[in-house]
Amino acid sequence: MRGPAHVAVDWGTSSFRLWVMDAAGDVLGERRSDQGMTAAAKAGFAPVLQSHLDALGVAAEVPVVICGMAGARQGWVEAGYLDTPAHLSDVLGRAVVVGGQNRDIRILPGIAQRDAAAPDVMRGEETQLLGALGLDAAGDALVCMPGTHSKWVHVAGGTVERFATFMTGELFGAVARDTILSHAVAGAEEAVDQDAFRSAVADAFAAPARTANLLFRVRARQLLFGGSAAAARETISGTLIGAELAASLAGCAPGAVTLIASGRLQQLYQLAFDTLSTPVRSVDADEAVRRGLAIAAGAIWKR
Amino acid sequence: MRGPAHVAVDWGTSSFRLWVMDAAGDVLGERRSDQGMTAAAKAGFAPVLQSHLDALGVAAEVPVVICGMAGARQGWVEAGYLDTPAHLSDVLGRAVVVGGQNRDIRILPGIAQRDAAAPDVMRGEETQLLGALGLDAAGDALVCMPGTHSKWVHVAGGTVERFATFMTGELFGAVARDTILSHAVAGAEEAVDQDAFRSAVADAFAAPARTANLLFRVRARQLLFGGSAAAARETISGTLIGAELAASLAGCAPGAVTLIASGRLQQLYQLAFDTLSTPVRSVDADEAVRRGLAIAAGAIWKR
Repeated sequence: MRGPAHVAVDWGTSSFRLWVMDAAGDVLGERRSDQGMTAAAKAGFAPVLQSHLDALGVAAEVPVVICGMAGARQGWVEAGYLDTPAHLSDVLGRAVVVGGQNRDIRILPGIAQRDAAAPDVMRGEETQLLGALGLDAAGDALVCMPGTHSKWVHVAGGTVERFATFMTGELFGAVARDTILSHAVAGAEEAVDQDAFRSAVADAFAAPARTANLLFRVRARQLLFGGSAAAARETISGTLIGAELAASLAGCAPGAVTLIASGRLQQLYQLAFDTLSTPVRSVDADEAVRRGLAIAAGAIWKR
Repeated sequence: MRGPAHVAVDWGTSSFRLWVMDAAGDVLGERRSDQGMTAAAKAGFAPVLQSHLDALGVAAEVPVVICGMAGARQGWVEAGYLDTPAHLSDVLGRAVVVGGQNRDIRILPGIAQRDAAAPDVMRGEETQLLGALGLDAAGDALVCMPGTHSKWVHVAGGTVERFATFMTGELFGAVARDTILSHAVAGAEEAVDQDAFRSAVADAFAAPARTANLLFRVRARQLLFGGSAAAARETISGTLIGAELAASLAGCAPGAVTLIASGRLQQLYQLAFDTLSTPVRSVDADEAVRRGLAIAAGAIWKR
């Protein structure tokens, strides 16, 4: 049995995920918590990390590689940004050492698009891209990484050429929770109303400018015609995702989109792409980030 | 000196406005409060109204005409909807009497678009339209009524043919208050950053599908290039308004838009229309609703 080679951490704004990996890239142990950057900034990044390492009994000589918001200005140690166009291999060379620890801990940088007309930033997604496409990625890829802040990335021969972030997930939360539509979705079951979702995706894709109108119709439809809370929720979700796809697929050469996602988001976006007859190559997001962190660990500690 | 002929009330979701009017349509007294439908549903509609009538010493024989959410299902007495196409004069004939009061009180109905593909409702705006266009309106008008829920209405010869509601104002509030952009706008002064607003209107008008991306850029721009909270706020506002205008002006014959608005909203939308070189005929919203209620009072009580 092989022992732990490195610890991989995906440290987001609101979530913390840690895997103990062996040299072959297999997972020996795993921890998940809601101690993301926001919570860890109060509790302390070092104690949060150490508590999870202790829980899994990870020896002090096992190094840790981290991606995500732990490298933000408000994070643990600022890991800066690579500027576009950025080759994914450059992510490895710019890892920042966390000083004053009794263990080798590195945080990977993000990528910035310093274009005054289209400024954008990512942190964590560059590592998912590395894992999904690999270091020697050839050809062009249009990559969709859905989430609170969905990223759409154009990658050519392993270089991130340009990207755009859509606040789709966060808008969904704000609309469903903090507007008049909160009444429309109250009590919605977990089950997805596929018809409502697909129809909303198609409507928003056809007329994305009308998004704020399509959202109000959720309320008007319930008032005039009734309808379930689940249908209302899926219509909001489908509307916002349909508009995101309209903007992101416009002007793109037809071809498969690489979808990096897990769980419910993977299902929703897959359904949205199916509705639009857009072929998709699906990559599991958890696997992608683990693989990206393993590639980084391999390069940093020269195994 | 003429005495009060009727009392006009615009009873919205979150605001209450009352005017004591003489037969010539002049304002003899005015009251404003935040006792909109939501608050009044708890305190009681009759006591809220009576407290304001008492404060102005309005005699029991002076009748009251009301428009807005007081006529909703969750309001005082449900006043139903006219269905599109609806002539504005039909609003007068469908006023509902509030029973059991020691005063003649009527609530005007709203207008519904019972189109399964484009369901929509308005309450209060039909009265503004009546006041702004008059009973014998000739010709076609494209009317913009900005607000929490902006309405865009196509009126032909006094008939509301079709309309669309955009949740623009409510989305602005939710985005500025309940998303990551709340940090970007924190501490913004009241002053409007006109350049940021105009540039955001133009960007969103040109690419309305990208709204969720244009919004995230507010955050990315501050991270990478700095910038004021006021600029961030106006960019959010201009983005949402620009997208609304893109959807609403698309496919419309060129010509003046009738803008029914007051105060800051009037200024913002005027600036947005100016940015797009769209001519505007501006009507004060307060005046429009008072005039609409006066036309209704004149017809109901046959003066």
